[in-house]
Amino acid sequence: MVNNMDKRVGVLGGGQLGAMLAEAANLLRIPVNVLDVGHSSAKQISNLGDHVEGSFKDADAIRKLAASSDVVTVEIEHVDTQILEEISNAGADVQPHWRTLRTIQDKYTQKEHLISNGVATAQSIPLKSATLKDLAEAADVLGLPLMLKSRKEAYDGRGNYAVKSKVDFEAALEALGGNRALYAEKWAEFRMELAVMVVKTRDDVLSFPTTETVHENSICKLTYTPARGVSSSIDQRAQDLARKAVACFEGKGVFGVEMFLLQNDELLINEIAPRPHNSGHYTIEACGVSQYEAHLSAILDLPLKQKSLRLNQPAIMLNILGGETENSHLKVVEEALKSDVRPKIHLYGKGKARKGRKMGHLTITAPTMSEAEEIIQPLIDFVDAQNSTTTQTTGTTTTTAATKRKRSPLVAVLMGSDSDLPKLAPGLATLRLFNVPYTTRITSAHRTPDAMAIYARSAASLGIEVIIAAAGGAAHLPGMVSAYTPLPVIGVPIKASMGDGMDSVLSILNMPKGVPTLTVGLNNGTNAALAAVRILGLRDRGFREAYVEFMREAERGVLEKDGRLVEVGDEVYLEGME
Amino acid sequence: MVNNMDKRVGVLGGGQLGAMLAEAANLLRIPVNVLDVGHSSAKQISNLGDHVEGSFKDADAIRKLAASSDVVTVEIEHVDTQILEEISNAGADVQPHWRTLRTIQDKYTQKEHLISNGVATAQSIPLKSATLKDLAEAADVLGLPLMLKSRKEAYDGRGNYAVKSKVDFEAALEALGGNRALYAEKWAEFRMELAVMVVKTRDDVLSFPTTETVHENSICKLTYTPARGVSSSIDQRAQDLARKAVACFEGKGVFGVEMFLLQNDELLINEIAPRPHNSGHYTIEACGVSQYEAHLSAILDLPLKQKSLRLNQPAIMLNILGGETENSHLKVVEEALKSDVRPKIHLYGKGKARKGRKMGHLTITAPTMSEAEEIIQPLIDFVDAQNSTTTQTTGTTTTTAATKRKRSPLVAVLMGSDSDLPKLAPGLATLRLFNVPYTTRITSAHRTPDAMAIYARSAASLGIEVIIAAAGGAAHLPGMVSAYTPLPVIGVPIKASMGDGMDSVLSILNMPKGVPTLTVGLNNGTNAALAAVRILGLRDRGFREAYVEFMREAERGVLEKDGRLVEVGDEVYLEGME
Repeated sequence: MVNNMDKRVGVLGGGQLGAMLAEAANLLRIPVNVLDVGHSSAKQISNLGDHVEGSFKDADAIRKLAASSDVVTVEIEHVDTQILEEISNAGADVQPHWRTLRTIQDKYTQKEHLISNGVATAQSIPLKSATLKDLAEAADVLGLPLMLKSRKEAYDGRGNYAVKSKVDFEAALEALGGNRALYAEKWAEFRMELAVMVVKTRDDVLSFPTTETVHENSICKLTYTPARGVSSSIDQRAQDLARKAVACFEGKGVFGVEMFLLQNDELLINEIAPRPHNSGHYTIEACGVSQYEAHLSAILDLPLKQKSLRLNQPAIMLNILGGETENSHLKVVEEALKSDVRPKIHLYGKGKARKGRKMGHLTITAPTMSEAEEIIQPLIDFVDAQNSTTTQTTGTTTTTAATKRKRSPLVAVLMGSDSDLPKLAPGLATLRLFNVPYTTRITSAHRTPDAMAIYARSAASLGIEVIIAAAGGAAHLPGMVSAYTPLPVIGVPIKASMGDGMDSVLSILNMPKGVPTLTVGLNNGTNAALAAVRILGLRDRGFREAYVEFMREAERGVLEKDGRLVEVGDEVYLEGME
Repeated sequence: MVNNMDKRVGVLGGGQLGAMLAEAANLLRIPVNVLDVGHSSAKQISNLGDHVEGSFKDADAIRKLAASSDVVTVEIEHVDTQILEEISNAGADVQPHWRTLRTIQDKYTQKEHLISNGVATAQSIPLKSATLKDLAEAADVLGLPLMLKSRKEAYDGRGNYAVKSKVDFEAALEALGGNRALYAEKWAEFRMELAVMVVKTRDDVLSFPTTETVHENSICKLTYTPARGVSSSIDQRAQDLARKAVACFEGKGVFGVEMFLLQNDELLINEIAPRPHNSGHYTIEACGVSQYEAHLSAILDLPLKQKSLRLNQPAIMLNILGGETENSHLKVVEEALKSDVRPKIHLYGKGKARKGRKMGHLTITAPTMSEAEEIIQPLIDFVDAQNSTTTQTTGTTTTTAATKRKRSPLVAVLMGSDSDLPKLAPGLATLRLFNVPYTTRITSAHRTPDAMAIYARSAASLGIEVIIAAAGGAAHLPGMVSAYTPLPVIGVPIKASMGDGMDSVLSILNMPKGVPTLTVGLNNGTNAALAAVRILGLRDRGFREAYVEFMREAERGVLEKDGRLVEVGDEVYLEGME
């Protein structure tokens, strides 16, 4: 077989991550040996390898897995690295390296390792013992609030406690258990949580696009890719930081890098997972190569290029979590099946649900984020309604509210002054008629040249797809905006207080070769809006279809008038017009 | 479990179609029982059900499968329908209906059934016996050339013989074997082969988009979706015809409908497969719901809506066929792995290759067909180069050459007269600079109003995304084109022989509210082209990135000039300009 595709991959753990890894392996007919107890998620859909019965923490079972596998990898970092060290020394190919797993599974040593490699992460202090005294000492250094965390075996918010004030000290220590090693982490006042999946291959460190993650009760609820309202420069910085972080670990494979975007746009690493990650599920449908195929490619040395990790389409992932009753998560599946546009449904076959357990996920991809949001929103509403009856507030969890958001704007309507707004009203009404999400901004080429430049430069990375700019007189705004953006710019000349408006028209129309503005007639914001809908129709069939219907409607309207004119004659018709 | 998702699906046959059905079932954790011999393709990746050992033609094995399954379906139509009738009468749920399978597996009765239901298909005559006399009689009715076909057990061109003239009679009868039931089919002079996957649910008949299929040596080589150069009205007619054809069969499930698009745009059904089909593989990556998930949804009565079958992105599928040597198909996989943008690789795990055997397939999706074509072309070239050393020409196969095609145009540049062409030359050069596939057309609002209307009306469905129209004087072309299309139209005013060109500008700019044209400066085709590239950037990151680079380059150019002006002073600079 070419390219190591006949090598047998042994996986410690057979949960959903192992299962999705096996799905990717199935497509390439790469044999996978799963080590887990019973007919676990991964074993249910994999029949190419020799599965091993036993716990992924059982030393003998791991030795047995290693004996029947050419590469050994993990779907969870909470593994016995002593055994991995032993089999590695005996010649087994363990990816990523056991030292990487050992460093990462202790969150404090993980942080220390990152800091010693110059990677930005939150300041952290280990507690010598789980006592009030040691916690108070840490709080003196880090300030309050702070996050108290278990060093090991913590995930999905378990093992974390948000310590708001001294009053919480006792409850925090009690919640995290008397005997566990703890550390305190400086509170990060973030405006958003982001994640980047990184692929460490033999020769390269590659990254998937930056994802926005939305947590509820410390459990990932939703991911949005590309991250909404995040400029391409932040996306790039996030990918750079994630690659830098992963580069300082040994071995091959994918790594999930969770980070905070602070209020000042600074990025801080939160945690790293040395394996496929919930925040990367979207890659299955949205990227040419998924995080799972990328992991296989990395550990088997299959050639993989950065371009293959690009986003084909915006994607939203919604986790299907266990609810109050054993079957409440199945109601979400039922809703998803009934959707007009059915999202891709992934069920994990994990048996009985318990509250917060990850039972599956949904992914919707669409030509625009705006369309994806529209499709998924009823399902988010359904999940929220299910939970609203049972909302919990516990001190052990931090909550990022997944509040309902307005759809991301696709069109920015810019004007130099609010005096232009009434002239643009018919155009804005047209955008609303077509249900185009838009934003209106006042920015002046002459009075706020810097603000205008900043906005025009960042519009594309904010998800804007068409800019409409209106101006009168020495009407520089459309052309100046065009100078700063690769987006199509439609200029609307507004008749100024003096002259016939030709000054406005020519100021917009006669741009030099190299910097196009697309001009419509004087005061004709309606046509600018219609042209924007036509342009959006390139990516979004909904707009195209609505536009075709609009043309038919306009045709019908004129034909009806003509019919009436023929019927009643011009004199009666004229009377009717009065 | 909600919605029948715990029902066990029994499948006759465990080849690649059964395997991909099992993949879709895996995601939903629907248990699948595969009946096939040994560790066949489907069994390799399915471990949720109770597979049955045995041939899918073995009556006892089928009875055993039925006993352990809630629904029985097929991945191949060449099954023993007597047994299916028996188990059906005994209460088994067989989908689609055994009568449907019996009618379809005999291609002549299939054709008769379609004709009796008023579905357009090629005229066919059964041969009483496989004799020269009976073939000559059929030729008298149908004319020559004609297709001589086996009524049963024919697929991938086996069992077909193109009879060009009387000289071929003997060879044809010999090739198709003396004892088989044969029929003769009227020769279809098609310009293209199309296929539509249809989903027959309990309550509905739904259709996927129309696919273009390219055959080589009578075996499907490539599919393109949407079909290239096919208008949306033909797409719609093809879907309508396919749904009508499938509606006249009993039972539930997906059906592959192959058809011919004749020179006069008429559509004729070629063949129907009562199961998932090679021409529908693209749906796995390109549609929200794949043909396999649709099949499961249909036979299990899961709710499914037409919108879920829509195309998310253009897709090209390339079959990986067995070649001259046992491993030559793996070379294609190796090439695919090395691609800059890796296509999705599906291997079937079918063991040894033989020439023409379907060993796997590749699917590439991209924001535009043009981009997908660019990514896949090197792999098509690789396959063609592999085959060119061993090209076969046999009388038993018809060949549709998969010749290299120009990329489908994204921009149409229209002008009323070829005298406008020189003025547009810089704009066309700009399109070439950005590697935008475009077409130039001469069409006049005044001299060829009908031709203009027809072109403008069909441009969108031909894959055109932006129209540039140039005109001078009473410059009606851009506005008139805009009146017929939902696409963005950019008008380029051309200075006429008299006046300052303002007539051209205003004729394009001052369109009534409701019919936008986007106007650029006089003679400024360059800016029209640049604006088109900006618009295309909405769907195709390649264009967006190239445009950003173009802006940087332009900035550098001016800054360099400024540097030189500062350095040498204006007098020397002026000398340099002379």
